[in-house]
Amino acid sequence: MAGASNQVLKALVEANSGIARSYGGDPWTREAEQLLSDVFGHELTAFLVTSGTAANSLALSAFAQPWRAILCHPHAHIIEDECSAPEFFTGGARLIPVAGVDGKIAAPALIRALERLPADAPHNVTPAVVSLSQATECGLVYRPDEIARLTEAARSHKLAVHMDGARFANAVASLGCSPADLTWKAGVDVLCLGASKNGALAAEAVIFFDPKHSLDFAVRRKRGGHLVAKGRFLGAQFSGWLRQGHWLDLARSANDTARQLSRGLSGIPGVRVVWTTEANEVFAILPRELDARLRGAGCSYYEWNCDSLPNGEYAAPEEVFARLVTSFTTTSAEVSEFLELARGG
Amino acid sequence: MAGASNQVLKALVEANSGIARSYGGDPWTREAEQLLSDVFGHELTAFLVTSGTAANSLALSAFAQPWRAILCHPHAHIIEDECSAPEFFTGGARLIPVAGVDGKIAAPALIRALERLPADAPHNVTPAVVSLSQATECGLVYRPDEIARLTEAARSHKLAVHMDGARFANAVASLGCSPADLTWKAGVDVLCLGASKNGALAAEAVIFFDPKHSLDFAVRRKRGGHLVAKGRFLGAQFSGWLRQGHWLDLARSANDTARQLSRGLSGIPGVRVVWTTEANEVFAILPRELDARLRGAGCSYYEWNCDSLPNGEYAAPEEVFARLVTSFTTTSAEVSEFLELARGG
Amino acid sequence: MAGASNQVLKALVEANSGIARSYGGDPWTREAEQLLSDVFGHELTAFLVTSGTAANSLALSAFAQPWRAILCHPHAHIIEDECSAPEFFTGGARLIPVAGVDGKIAAPALIRALERLPADAPHNVTPAVVSLSQATECGLVYRPDEIARLTEAARSHKLAVHMDGARFANAVASLGCSPADLTWKAGVDVLCLGASKNGALAAEAVIFFDPKHSLDFAVRRKRGGHLVAKGRFLGAQFSGWLRQGHWLDLARSANDTARQLSRGLSGIPGVRVVWTTEANEVFAILPRELDARLRGAGCSYYEWNCDSLPNGEYAAPEEVFARLVTSFTTTSAEVSEFLELARGG
Amino acid sequence: MAGASNQVLKALVEANSGIARSYGGDPWTREAEQLLSDVFGHELTAFLVTSGTAANSLALSAFAQPWRAILCHPHAHIIEDECSAPEFFTGGARLIPVAGVDGKIAAPALIRALERLPADAPHNVTPAVVSLSQATECGLVYRPDEIARLTEAARSHKLAVHMDGARFANAVASLGCSPADLTWKAGVDVLCLGASKNGALAAEAVIFFDPKHSLDFAVRRKRGGHLVAKGRFLGAQFSGWLRQGHWLDLARSANDTARQLSRGLSGIPGVRVVWTTEANEVFAILPRELDARLRGAGCSYYEWNCDSLPNGEYAAPEEVFARLVTSFTTTSAEVSEFLELARGG
Repeated sequence: MAGASNQVLKALVEANSGIARSYGGDPWTREAEQLLSDVFGHELTAFLVTSGTAANSLALSAFAQPWRAILCHPHAHIIEDECSAPEFFTGGARLIPVAGVDGKIAAPALIRALERLPADAPHNVTPAVVSLSQATECGLVYRPDEIARLTEAARSHKLAVHMDGARFANAVASLGCSPADLTWKAGVDVLCLGASKNGALAAEAVIFFDPKHSLDFAVRRKRGGHLVAKGRFLGAQFSGWLRQGHWLDLARSANDTARQLSRGLSGIPGVRVVWTTEANEVFAILPRELDARLRGAGCSYYEWNCDSLPNGEYAAPEEVFARLVTSFTTTSAEVSEFLELARGG
Repeated sequence: MAGASNQVLKALVEANSGIARSYGGDPWTREAEQLLSDVFGHELTAFLVTSGTAANSLALSAFAQPWRAILCHPHAHIIEDECSAPEFFTGGARLIPVAGVDGKIAAPALIRALERLPADAPHNVTPAVVSLSQATECGLVYRPDEIARLTEAARSHKLAVHMDGARFANAVASLGCSPADLTWKAGVDVLCLGASKNGALAAEAVIFFDPKHSLDFAVRRKRGGHLVAKGRFLGAQFSGWLRQGHWLDLARSANDTARQLSRGLSGIPGVRVVWTTEANEVFAILPRELDARLRGAGCSYYEWNCDSLPNGEYAAPEEVFARLVTSFTTTSAEVSEFLELARGG
Repeated sequence: MAGASNQVLKALVEANSGIARSYGGDPWTREAEQLLSDVFGHELTAFLVTSGTAANSLALSAFAQPWRAILCHPHAHIIEDECSAPEFFTGGARLIPVAGVDGKIAAPALIRALERLPADAPHNVTPAVVSLSQATECGLVYRPDEIARLTEAARSHKLAVHMDGARFANAVASLGCSPADLTWKAGVDVLCLGASKNGALAAEAVIFFDPKHSLDFAVRRKRGGHLVAKGRFLGAQFSGWLRQGHWLDLARSANDTARQLSRGLSGIPGVRVVWTTEANEVFAILPRELDARLRGAGCSYYEWNCDSLPNGEYAAPEEVFARLVTSFTTTSAEVSEFLELARGG
Repeated sequence: MAGASNQVLKALVEANSGIARSYGGDPWTREAEQLLSDVFGHELTAFLVTSGTAANSLALSAFAQPWRAILCHPHAHIIEDECSAPEFFTGGARLIPVAGVDGKIAAPALIRALERLPADAPHNVTPAVVSLSQATECGLVYRPDEIARLTEAARSHKLAVHMDGARFANAVASLGCSPADLTWKAGVDVLCLGASKNGALAAEAVIFFDPKHSLDFAVRRKRGGHLVAKGRFLGAQFSGWLRQGHWLDLARSANDTARQLSRGLSGIPGVRVVWTTEANEVFAILPRELDARLRGAGCSYYEWNCDSLPNGEYAAPEEVFARLVTSFTTTSAEVSEFLELARGG
């Protein structure tokens, strides 16, 4: 895992000197809020926290009462990798998976789920929120019209829409559309915008596009221990990250090397790239012998656990399902070197 | 829904007179505890409450910390019909469905689920309990060896085993084996024994077969508002219900009329009985026109919602999926009358 | 502890026969709701549960978010005797004691507390509800004007007002004013009306005088395991209890014997009656030797634990602080017999 | 509020470059753990988080089940200033104040409270932990023998002992004794060691002196959203803070300027210094006219809200109760300048 980008670190160091108001009353937090508002072209209320788990769980708690449900993809980070933080912060709301290819929920599947879920109050748990990951856990991105169809379905059942944007920057960079197109214009109520995976040290923003949804949020954040006394620490990271489109430059770079890696891998005999590479993650099935060779040479990547691949495929016993992630620090030369190694060079 | 049986009501009326110690310190509660111990042939700690939802949720909370998971059938009452009470009482534990035919979890499916569930602490939610419904929500019963295979699988992954026994009496009556065979001898840690559906007014017992599991339970019950001041009200119901095998007489009667109903329905053209009738519930697909005729004549039963039937069948649009429940008050003559009506008589 | 009154038991037995709709859809529950509305002279939404702890905690949860506070007397049942049920049902709201003589909160003390409590959001816990016990834990009753002054103070700080009416019937009988005068006319938002201590087996009603406060309540009750399937069990108790003013007859009888007991005790040398006896509880300091004699003769009452008595008095080491409670079954002859015994007869 | 010290910032910047394992698997976190173990002269398990509220609340949750109580001073940060975070993380445990002068709980007061608290399970909430603030919220420090007497009283009632060490460094620097003397040697079970107020940006360590108390802690931290992905961010701050006794140098400097300020203020007519200045906080009652002058000249400090001062004093209407905090960045010259201003210079 990479550290912070130079620009983010520089902002942090500059913000460190001198005395500043605590608990987010500092000028860097104000600047971050203004930059977010500019970037999204909309008034918004933003709350900075240090982890994606905190951001997602707190955001969901603003919409899902303890006896409601949250619909999400079965591979969503909130259901797979955040322990039971969503349950903790909501006070017990239930996560209900809605399956779909590419890590995406498709609108018809959402509609079918909403129609089939039992809704006999007070006996059944009824859904209050649908959560989308942008980019998805399979490294693909939702198009604005896909999002709009989902939020329309959600809205017709009175559900709010949450977007887990741990890789939102990669999605924006990949699609070339505006942050607004992917969020409030498409019907998203709350976005958790992640900077940590893309250039910051530890900084995530919970962004509400309608202030009425965030009335209690300052208390929720404090009660969760997520109000940092020296708020400038978060404000400076976000300001440094957002100034001059730096956040998108970082994401673009990571996306580019991911595509390079994906193209390269797909040309290697025995390697199958699993999903289209649209963000900064490449999923590939490697011969076990290749995997051993790469790791022997010091390469490091995740072995992925996934019940099934697209089209019902499975990784064979003599294969490994690998997840390779590029970051803003990954260079094209490094990818080339890796590919050469993979080609047996 | 029927009221209490005469014997239960009589016990309640008798217990009503005079002064008694409160909060379960009364002689009827003592008697109930002794009868339960006799019935199960084992030392046990029993806690009486007024609802099945309370019994199940409190029992689960004794085994599942807030960050753990509970495995259950996707049609289990605890996941379908108890609002989010399990989440509430456990403080946020997650219910994870493990599918199976006949409302049953099969041991191989449980093992596969346990092996596939991600277990990377502290990121993943890891299972702590498996919950079985006896009889199942499809009206079938688990045999002792089926239970033993499940509890063995659970034990090998350090899971506890909870049994939702809302219809436990029907299962015992159906199988003709002992209560012990279906519980502690087969590896069950805690049984929620339901009397309410089978002759009591509002009485359920949470039964621990190892006292070390119930150390905090008195506090959990009180904290949930489920410690009734006039404990004799619950003690008397249970005593009346258990004396002289009354509870099994009631269950046997309900099972008998259910089987009569099932046999009768299966002989009617256009009617398909869906699952084998082993307890007091009959599931049948009825032509919509027959359904209308029965309801027109004053019959009342549930329309069932179920994604899929055994063998992937579905109720056709011109059909109705009906759930018919008999009780200890149902007579053979009433069933005959219903069947005659159904036959178009 | 006494059982149910004959009229309540009779209603329960009558309601037991035949089939009825479940979960409160039965005619007895409907009748109870209508009787409550008549008794209070106001439209209301009522929810029946089996314990006072459940009633109070659920009611408080409808007003206090998890990060808010509930103000109550330091001897209030909700803070002293209900385990941490209020915290459980509210999700962590804080109980903050506001001291006062006679178990009462006085309006000036409430106002002072509200003005002094730190209110720097999101750092401080801010109050949302004030809870009053009627009759108080010291056996006295709030007059309508006392209540009105408290609710006015509460309202001016945007607090809701909860009344723990475990002994509400005794208060009404004692004051001779209407139930309306003591509740909605005086500004009370929610009353937990207890029948269990005054003639029922296990029945309490949570009564909202404004339906907008109870929108989620059916779900809260279910989620707490407090929705009883055979709702007639609760409905019948309440109907039997309320019909023809039975509830007040019972309370009047208990109040009368308590006053007889209080008068008698205060005439015995060495005995000090601590608080004016306005409901069905007598608090008295007894010489330890008298206490021993009474208990030796089979009398049973609570030894009270209380830091301080009115006027800073304490029970001396050779004294016992006793709490004696009369019920609707207590007869004047029994009280006379007890007093004779106390007089050394 | 000051930022990070140069040494801490430097450590952070150095740690930023290159790739490191995530979630605390990095070398800086390892170094921080080793340094903590060295500093305390004891094996320990340490968990780094970003806020004091998170540290305290998580630590308390490891000892207090949801139905237990936590005893603390009525001015403790955990009860006054952390919203309801302790209730949130413990699942509803109750904070019970135990009063004492100087922000300290005295052992006799603790013993009396423990003896008087009702302990009738399951009706009463029983205490599980006592929490001490070192330095106290009044700027004084507990001596090792004071702590030992408190922990002995706690132990005799089976309570654990938590220390809120937001200003622990100041206490160590003030007393000149070892960190061990103030913690495990004196019977403390868990220390929340705060770096944020004394040279770090956002870094607190939860330190358990017996590993059996921290078995679930990694999950609790993750579930609260307090496991930071780039753990080096926390590890580097702590390493930089602890290396070469830097943390104590910073605290000593802040203590020195606080004492200088205290001495100076106490010599100014009309000013009363309220508590002995033992750490880095000075509490003083200032004439309102002096307060206005200071603020007019750009000085900034807290106006303190406190029900009563030592000896029952109150700030008069024409006075202001001020809390002045020095930090490691405060210079002796700045204090002199402030004092000169205060003297009307």
